[in-house]
Formats: sequence, C-alpha cells, structure tokens
Amino acid sequence: MTQANFGVVGMAVMGKNLALNVESRGYTVAIYNRTTSKTQEVMAEHPDKKFIFTKTLEEFVGAIEKPRRIMLMVKAGAPTDATIKSLLPLLDKGDILIDGGNTHYPDTMRRNAELADSGINFIGTGVSGGEKGALLGPSMMPGGQKEAYDLVAPIFAQIAGKAPQDGKPCVAYMGPNGAGHFVKMVHNGIEYGDMQLIAESYDLMKRVLGLSNEEIQATFEEWNKGELDSYLIEITKEVLKRKDDLGDGFIVDKILDRAGNKGTGKWTSQSALDLGVSLPLITESVFARFISAFKDEREKASKVLSGPQVPFTGDKKEAIEKIRKALYFSKIMSYAQGFAQLRRASEAYSWDLPFATIASIWRAGCIIRAQFLQKITDAFDKNAALENLLLDEYFIDVTKNYQSAVRDVVSLAVQSGIPAPTYSSAIAYYDSYRSENLPANLIQAQRDYFGAHTYERTDKARGEAFHYDWYTED
Amino acid sequence: MTQANFGVVGMAVMGKNLALNVESRGYTVAIYNRTTSKTQEVMAEHPDKKFIFTKTLEEFVGAIEKPRRIMLMVKAGAPTDATIKSLLPLLDKGDILIDGGNTHYPDTMRRNAELADSGINFIGTGVSGGEKGALLGPSMMPGGQKEAYDLVAPIFAQIAGKAPQDGKPCVAYMGPNGAGHFVKMVHNGIEYGDMQLIAESYDLMKRVLGLSNEEIQATFEEWNKGELDSYLIEITKEVLKRKDDLGDGFIVDKILDRAGNKGTGKWTSQSALDLGVSLPLITESVFARFISAFKDEREKASKVLSGPQVPFTGDKKEAIEKIRKALYFSKIMSYAQGFAQLRRASEAYSWDLPFATIASIWRAGCIIRAQFLQKITDAFDKNAALENLLLDEYFIDVTKNYQSAVRDVVSLAVQSGIPAPTYSSAIAYYDSYRSENLPANLIQAQRDYFGAHTYERTDKARGEAFHYDWYTED
Repeated sequence: MTQANFGVVGMAVMGKNLALNVESRGYTVAIYNRTTSKTQEVMAEHPDKKFIFTKTLEEFVGAIEKPRRIMLMVKAGAPTDATIKSLLPLLDKGDILIDGGNTHYPDTMRRNAELADSGINFIGTGVSGGEKGALLGPSMMPGGQKEAYDLVAPIFAQIAGKAPQDGKPCVAYMGPNGAGHFVKMVHNGIEYGDMQLIAESYDLMKRVLGLSNEEIQATFEEWNKGELDSYLIEITKEVLKRKDDLGDGFIVDKILDRAGNKGTGKWTSQSALDLGVSLPLITESVFARFISAFKDEREKASKVLSGPQVPFTGDKKEAIEKIRKALYFSKIMSYAQGFAQLRRASEAYSWDLPFATIASIWRAGCIIRAQFLQKITDAFDKNAALENLLLDEYFIDVTKNYQSAVRDVVSLAVQSGIPAPTYSSAIAYYDSYRSENLPANLIQAQRDYFGAHTYERTDKARGEAFHYDWYTED
Repeated sequence: MTQANFGVVGMAVMGKNLALNVESRGYTVAIYNRTTSKTQEVMAEHPDKKFIFTKTLEEFVGAIEKPRRIMLMVKAGAPTDATIKSLLPLLDKGDILIDGGNTHYPDTMRRNAELADSGINFIGTGVSGGEKGALLGPSMMPGGQKEAYDLVAPIFAQIAGKAPQDGKPCVAYMGPNGAGHFVKMVHNGIEYGDMQLIAESYDLMKRVLGLSNEEIQATFEEWNKGELDSYLIEITKEVLKRKDDLGDGFIVDKILDRAGNKGTGKWTSQSALDLGVSLPLITESVFARFISAFKDEREKASKVLSGPQVPFTGDKKEAIEKIRKALYFSKIMSYAQGFAQLRRASEAYSWDLPFATIASIWRAGCIIRAQFLQKITDAFDKNAALENLLLDEYFIDVTKNYQSAVRDVVSLAVQSGIPAPTYSSAIAYYDSYRSENLPANLIQAQRDYFGAHTYERTDKARGEAFHYDWYTED
C-alpha cells in the first residue's frame, strides 16, 4: 500500500486547501477530520487526488511514512491541545507535528517544550494568505526544532508563494519554539495598522475632500501602481468598484461601520507592552476597531458633541498627493515599530530572528504583501543589526521628503474634525524617536517627588540613582 | 495582656506609615516583619506608640483580637503568596486578610477564591498616595467580601484622606474579589496619562514657545488656581522651582529624560485590550515612557532624522491659554476612557462598580486627586448609568468650548515637529466618538474580501451576517 508523504488533520477550508496545495506538488497526502463526513466530502469533491482517506487517528497515523510530517489545521486553543493529546500515544520519536493554526505564541512555546519531552518535534507555523493563499501559495512562518524543520522545508518551499522580485519561496525558518507564531502575530498586527491607515485615507478623501466613490476608487487604483503597490491597496480598489448585491449603489456604502477582530492585533499590542517597546500605530488601529463597535453610543454622541464646520478650500489634487505621501510615511512608522518589537522579542526569547528574511517572506502570499517589503529586506541585508528601520538610508530619505505632507494631512484632519488616530500617532512617533531630549525628565521628577522612585542625571553615569529632598523647601 | 485591634505585616516604609496612621486613631497595632531587625527599628523609632512587637507569625497572629484584621504590606506577587501561605494555618475562620500591596487584580481574584475555601476573608485594597499618603491619609480602594469589609470600614474611614469638598473619607467598598485592585490599576493608568499630558504641555512651552523654566513654573502655578487644580500640577510647579542640589541651575534640567515604570500603566492598557474598550490616551502615555527609555537610539536618530524649523510667531499668552484648555480637554478624554473601561470591567466581572463613589474617593489622598473629580462625581450622581462621561452636560459644554484650542495646539505641535502623542490621541478619540459613521465599513469589506469574515448591513438588523462574492467580477 502507498504510504502518505504528509498528513493533514482538519478539513475545514484552510486545511483542505493546504492539503490540495501539497498534493498538487506530487505528494500523497493522508487526510483526517474528527467528523468523518467532512473528509468524505473532500474525497468526493476531489476524486482524482492522491489523498488517503482515513476514518480514525490510528488509520491516519498508520498511513504516513516515518518520520511522520503531520500538519494540524484545527482551531487554535483547546481543540489544538485535544488533537495533540489524542495523537501523542500514536506517534513515534522523531515524528513532526506542525501547527498551522492561528495560535498564540505562548501556547506554541509550551507545546514545543511539552512534546520535546516525548521526543516529538513541534513546528508552530504561521500561515498567512487566507483561503486562496492556502491553496495557491501562502506565506509561511515556521518555528521549532531546526533539524525537524529541515525535513519539512522541501515541501513548504514548494507550496509557499513566490516573491515576484526573485521567485524565492515565501517561507523560512524563523527560530526555536514560538518564533514562527510570534512573527505571524506581528504580521497580523501590521495588517491591522495597514488597514486602518487605508481607512483613514478613504475617510479623509470622502469626508474632507468630498470625493465620490468613483474618484476614491480611481485614486487607490493609481496608488497601487506606485510605491504603495500592495495586496491591501489592490483589494481596496476592488472593493470600491463593487455594486451592492442586494440593491442599488455601492456595496461599501451598505456595509455597517462596526469592525470585528479575531484578537491577533490585541495580542501584538499586549506583547509590545510586555516587552517595553513602543507600538502606538498598531495599538491605535486596534482601539479604532473597538470604538467602531460602539455604534449606538457614537450615534448618540454625534447628536450632542459638536465639531468644526470647515469646508475644504485647498487644491484637491495636491491634497490627494499629500494623503498618498502620508500613507507611505505612516506605513514606514508602523513597520519600524513592528520590526523594533521583533528585535526586542528576539533578544527576550533568544530566538535570533532573521529580520531580512522575515521581510522577504512577506513579499508574497500574505495579506500585507507589498513592493515596499523589498526595501525592508534591503535595509536588513545591508545591516542585520539595524536598531530601527528609521535609521536606514532609504527610510531617512523618504521621511525627510514626506514628513511635511503628513504634518499637513494631520493638521487638516484635526482642524476638520475627522479622526486620524494612526496618522497622528505616526508623526508623534517620528518626532519622539528623533528627539534627543524628551520631557520625560519632568515625569522622572514627579515620580521621585511622590514615590521616591529616583532618577538618573544628565551629568552622571547611566544607572546611577539620585533622589531629591523635595519636602525640604529651598 | 492588651490585644491588638489591627495587625500589619511588612515594615517597609508603606507598611510602617500605615501602621502609624492606624495607631494614631487610637488603635493598638501588632506589627511584624520577616526580618525582625526591621520591626525592632520601628519600635525604637516610635517608643511611645501602641505597637505590639512580634518576632514570629505565631506571636503576631496570637496578639490580635478576633476576628483578626491583618493588613499585608509586602511586595506584590510571590512574596504575597508566600506570606499568605505562612499565615493560613494560624488563622481562624472569619479572619480578614487585607492586601494593601500593588497587586495585579487577577491575583486578587484568585486569592480571594482560594482563601474563601478556608473560610478566610480576603480584601484586596488599592492604596494610593505614596509614603506621605499612607501616613497622613491615603485614598483606599478595597474589594472582597462585603460583610468582612464592614468590619474593617470604621478603621479605614478614619485613616483615609478626607475630600476637601465635603470632608468625606476617601475610601469605599468597590465590589467583590478583584474590584478594589482593578480600580486602583485604572487610577494608576490615569496617573500615567495625566503625567504625560503635563509633560507634553511643558515640552510645548519649552521647545515651541521658548519659555524659561521660571515662566513655565509661573504658568503651572497659575493653572493650579483654576479648573486644573490638582496634586500633579501642584508638584509640577514645585519641581520647576527647585535648584540643582549638586550644582548650578534647575534640577529639572539635570534629570535624565528616561522614564521608568512599575507596570501598572501597562496592565491598564492590556486590560482595556482584553475588554475591547478603547484606551488610547493612557496607552500612548505608556508608550511615551517606553520610547523615552531608548535614549541612545534617540540621540543617534536626532542626528539623521530631519524635522521642520518653524519659529513660533504667534501670541505667546494666547498659545499658553490654548495649551491650558487643551490639557483640560485631553484630561477629560482620558478620564472618559478610564471610566468606560471601569464600566466594561464591571459588566465583564459582575462587580457592580460604584462610579460616582470611585470619582469621589479620588478627590483626596491619591496621586490623581483634583478638583475636577467633583465634576465626575456629579455626573455619575446625576446618572449612574451614564455610558460615557462625554455624554454628560458639563463635559459636553467644556468640549464644545475647548475643542478648537486642542485642535490648534495639536496642529502647532505637529507643524513644529514636537511630539504630542497624548494630545493627538485625545482629539482623535473625541472625533471618533462623535462620528456617527467611521470608515470601519471599508475595513469590514477588506476582512470579508480576504478572510470571508462577513459584515453587517446598514439596512438590515444588527447581528445578521452578509458575505459578498468578491471573486466574481461584476
């Protein structure tokens, strides 16, 4: 009997599409789902594929060649733990479990350590690209035992998306234990930021410049040909084209302005808070989703809280170009923050994350894929120890040329009464980061005053603690 | 032998001062410290006090009248758990342990439940006011078993600070289990926000308006006489007066601009992220502290990242008054966010938090004490179900009159290249909250496009999920 080269547990759409992707590269794939009817459906839909149908986990594990490569595509959290528990007694030392779910990285760190005790390798793998990506070529961020990953790498290199710049597969080893799921989490945080920046651009064009859907659509279409070229701008121009499927007008105008979230943006912000790294842009984008959800309160507030009535009198073309520059500038701030977080995490968890490679495997397959990621790849290729993207020549140059645009756009938004939380936080971050002196001296004085928390002095060695006798009057 | 009415474990400065405070109201207090020499020192320093010196926990517990009221003033975390573990076998059912440490509320929830199994009451109590407050009258936020708290309440009412408006003690029952420590955590988060707002005001006066320390000092002194009257403004005007104790000039100019933190601001932001409530101002203030800590990177960045050179040409007096209004406006945004978080937490944890009372017990004793808290007390007294402070008449009025000032100040900061992250986030929050329609419709369209996450429609019932067939071209 033919043995499977690979196994997939979980036949929901992501698992099914990943199995199809692997099979399409010439491999035989054993498939299993807790509810067998789901597996039967997949077999019926794809009768000509090299799939091995299995009804029990025993059958499933028995059908795969050793060392087994088994990918879990089940719900993150308790269902993943339950699946691992059921599989564990059936596995042999050296087998490789791959978690392709949307798992919080501390869970991956825990599972990797627990399974290592039984001699089972555990590769936590972030998978981005949605359903279509899983089928045609996702971006994949695996982390875990390096030797074990090497046995999976040939398959992953085949199924991953390929970068348009050089055809390289969008997958690479990220580091030990939770490294892969951590990188995927930051990817998602960045995705939140990108989406909010696009939303604010749309809002400014709509509510301040008074542009029509057609004009805004044409603008995004134009932007997608330049340095903003990216998947999210591409789908934005697509979204804005589409007519309502249930009535007249554009669908975008019929969609309720209450944004949902699956928690990965929140995790990213919470991790930054734990790591002591500044991540305002992504965090503002998470809070923007939260406040959007309070639709009823906002409706009530809109009737009693006043705002300015400032008709736009400037040049619209010029304003659009400034918004484009502001979007690119702010995107740079967001990625600078995200990569600073990766850098701190790499130190804190001893992961030795490959920053240039991370940027390079985001060039295709994933939701934040963009031409711009080549610039980040280049920056870290030139200097792997780069402390912050903003210190790279290319980004120094862009920020120099684009900063006045973002200053004008933020002022315009603020004076017009249109919220631009991520744009505002982008310029505040830039100005904070380039401030040799911040007013934190006053904060340290206050903390020493009420809590005797001590402070350092500008004229003494770093680390030396001073306390002032505040309660004695001069 | 006289029995103690109250016991205090932990003779570091906060524990000692609290014991002195209780003693000063006529109570006999048993005191204990793990290292006995510390207890001996306190006895030697205060030979005339009604303190009962104890060397072992057995002696300590034996010296206190039943049901025992024992306050733990030890380090939060593992030391608190260790102390409880040692005490537990010595206690009797009905005894009351009070944790006055800086404890993370989930720990209090856990300990309250665990101890309840042994019949021991556990009152997690936030204590604010620093060393001086502990001695002379702190603001206290107790949570736990109500019946047990009632036995502590008479003592707490005596030792707490008294509100200048009506002489009421700044202590009240907050709710079950972790409610007290949660309220204290939000207090601290608000404190972070207040301090950062003051720091940004100082920075604008210094770097944009070019004012001297003396001029800035006089400004804060003036502000402290009006609606900004508060402890933090008061100490700011004190700090700015003080000369360097080790050399020439003002001490504030010698203090290094690297702000520390003890984690409570971070906890507040992380909790808001978990609760799904928008808390940008406090969070920006936490991130501002983080970025201040990267002094070396900032020095490097200041040499390569350019900014605008815009000399201030306006009227300085007018600008100062606008900054004052912006500070008050932004403070309102911060408290609105903090109280919205309390409201969500109250629902999520079934605490039934008394919002008016919370504002009222912050009127004295604690670090954020301010005249302005009376306005919040009034708002919740008028309407306990108020969804957001911004919907109260007084605040509607202030924001109406002050918003143009904050818009001008943010524009000025942004155009001058001076970071104002909390000011910027304040106006963004205001404009988001009062927006009947936000651009989250576009975000929902994108999420449905790449992840089939579905959306609601403006013309259908809330909760009904729609999905668009994006991959079929029109």
